[in-house]
Amino acid sequence: MKIMQPTSTKFITRWAGAEPTKIKDELVVEEPLEIRVGQQSLIVVMRTPGQDFELAAGFLYTEGLITSSDDIEVIAYCDEEVSESQDAGISSFQNIINVQLTEELDFDAHSGWQRNFHANTSCGLCGKMTIESVRQQVAPLNSGFRVSQAILYELNDRLRKAQSVFERTGGLHAAGLFDETGKLLIVREDIGRHNAVDKVIGQALLSDMAPLERHILMVSGRASFEIVQKALFARIPIVVAVSAASTLAVDLAAEGNLTLIGFMRGQRMAVYSCPERICNES
Amino acid sequence: MKIMQPTSTKFITRWAGAEPTKIKDELVVEEPLEIRVGQQSLIVVMRTPGQDFELAAGFLYTEGLITSSDDIEVIAYCDEEVSESQDAGISSFQNIINVQLTEELDFDAHSGWQRNFHANTSCGLCGKMTIESVRQQVAPLNSGFRVSQAILYELNDRLRKAQSVFERTGGLHAAGLFDETGKLLIVREDIGRHNAVDKVIGQALLSDMAPLERHILMVSGRASFEIVQKALFARIPIVVAVSAASTLAVDLAAEGNLTLIGFMRGQRMAVYSCPERICNES
Repeated sequence: MKIMQPTSTKFITRWAGAEPTKIKDELVVEEPLEIRVGQQSLIVVMRTPGQDFELAAGFLYTEGLITSSDDIEVIAYCDEEVSESQDAGISSFQNIINVQLTEELDFDAHSGWQRNFHANTSCGLCGKMTIESVRQQVAPLNSGFRVSQAILYELNDRLRKAQSVFERTGGLHAAGLFDETGKLLIVREDIGRHNAVDKVIGQALLSDMAPLERHILMVSGRASFEIVQKALFARIPIVVAVSAASTLAVDLAAEGNLTLIGFMRGQRMAVYSCPERICNES
Repeated sequence: MKIMQPTSTKFITRWAGAEPTKIKDELVVEEPLEIRVGQQSLIVVMRTPGQDFELAAGFLYTEGLITSSDDIEVIAYCDEEVSESQDAGISSFQNIINVQLTEELDFDAHSGWQRNFHANTSCGLCGKMTIESVRQQVAPLNSGFRVSQAILYELNDRLRKAQSVFERTGGLHAAGLFDETGKLLIVREDIGRHNAVDKVIGQALLSDMAPLERHILMVSGRASFEIVQKALFARIPIVVAVSAASTLAVDLAAEGNLTLIGFMRGQRMAVYSCPERICNES
């Protein structure tokens, strides 16, 4: 049985100054894990594979759904579900866990948790009932928008300078929307990184700027699956993150024909998908 | 009408070396926002107040539930709910939004979204149906556990050195469980910061170490409401974060008699609640 690894190697385009080169890079793996209790779906979390049984046990315990290890009878992967889920386009090897409790879970006693009530606790996936429902259908982008690497190198400084609250509290994520000349149009800060993105895109939507087919979205943190999915819904062709991108973010970006850039620092960046949107002009 | 602010000032205990001092600090505000569509609860997100209408509009758009601003008839706060929700112990002024759409939302067309299906997309709150269900009932800690500041100052280095995957990918959060001497017992890395905490606590649970009444939990990022709530369920008396804590995390920690520490860097830390657990010994 092949065990899922926490990292995966991909070819990416590394830009340093005006020079792109193809290199191999090691990315952190992001995969959905569906936790079932007594064969009933409870939640899907986006996680890095490894210690999945501990994750399920810890989740149930820290949500107050169980109170000791004695409440757990068995934790096991649901291998029989694999082929069915693979049809939905998401690798699901070891992505479904079933926890059998010694006594049936009394959902009614837990106000926040109800039967057929499914949520995400951790890293930005919108709560979905099952793995099949994680990936929503978004048409690939066909934007012919291109931008020079010189403009991209400017974005980080502009976003950082526009952050007003972070400097005082150190506690906020930022998202910024730039036009094709690199001008910052909207910046929002929030304790939740997906909220910052939703506020930026929501502002654009309410200002009748959407769809954002000639725009660039920048986020102060990492690029997850969910950030890329949000950008695709808003038709944004280029997403730039200050930090790393996950495997699933890169896969979704490539499928959606979206240019995903990470580790944007100074005159360097890692281009994970669709590098052809970046042109070498200064 | 008082508008909620994105930051709030609190008195905290700032330790530098062996010297504690009381200072005023500015914290980022974390508050739940319940988004309703047609008066029906869709989701609760933990967010920083401000641009809440944009957040709601952006959320619906980037989840594919609406396709243009024309789909929105009205967005407004549900002020009538305030007093009811305040009874549940959570400030809810401007924490409930209702979006009236021009056409009724066809939940059946969105496989991941169903009526009575509620989730969190952004910053670690376990998906809850309504604001009333956000805060779960956890008894306050009565642990007499104390630790010296010298031991606390060691934790960051120990956690960082034990992170194996982060160095290669730059894409992971870490959580570590330490005993009362500062020995690292369990470390886990994950793309989701709450997953890392769940894996650590789950491992402790499955090893019959729980409840963790003489232990310290450290996280590589920020301290949110949800991290503190998870620690309370596991009865961990001290939580240390490398970065900032939110207002709601501090409030919950103070109520639960949990010592919450942030900005743990070198020989400095910010103690947000229950500083009496820290003794001045080197």
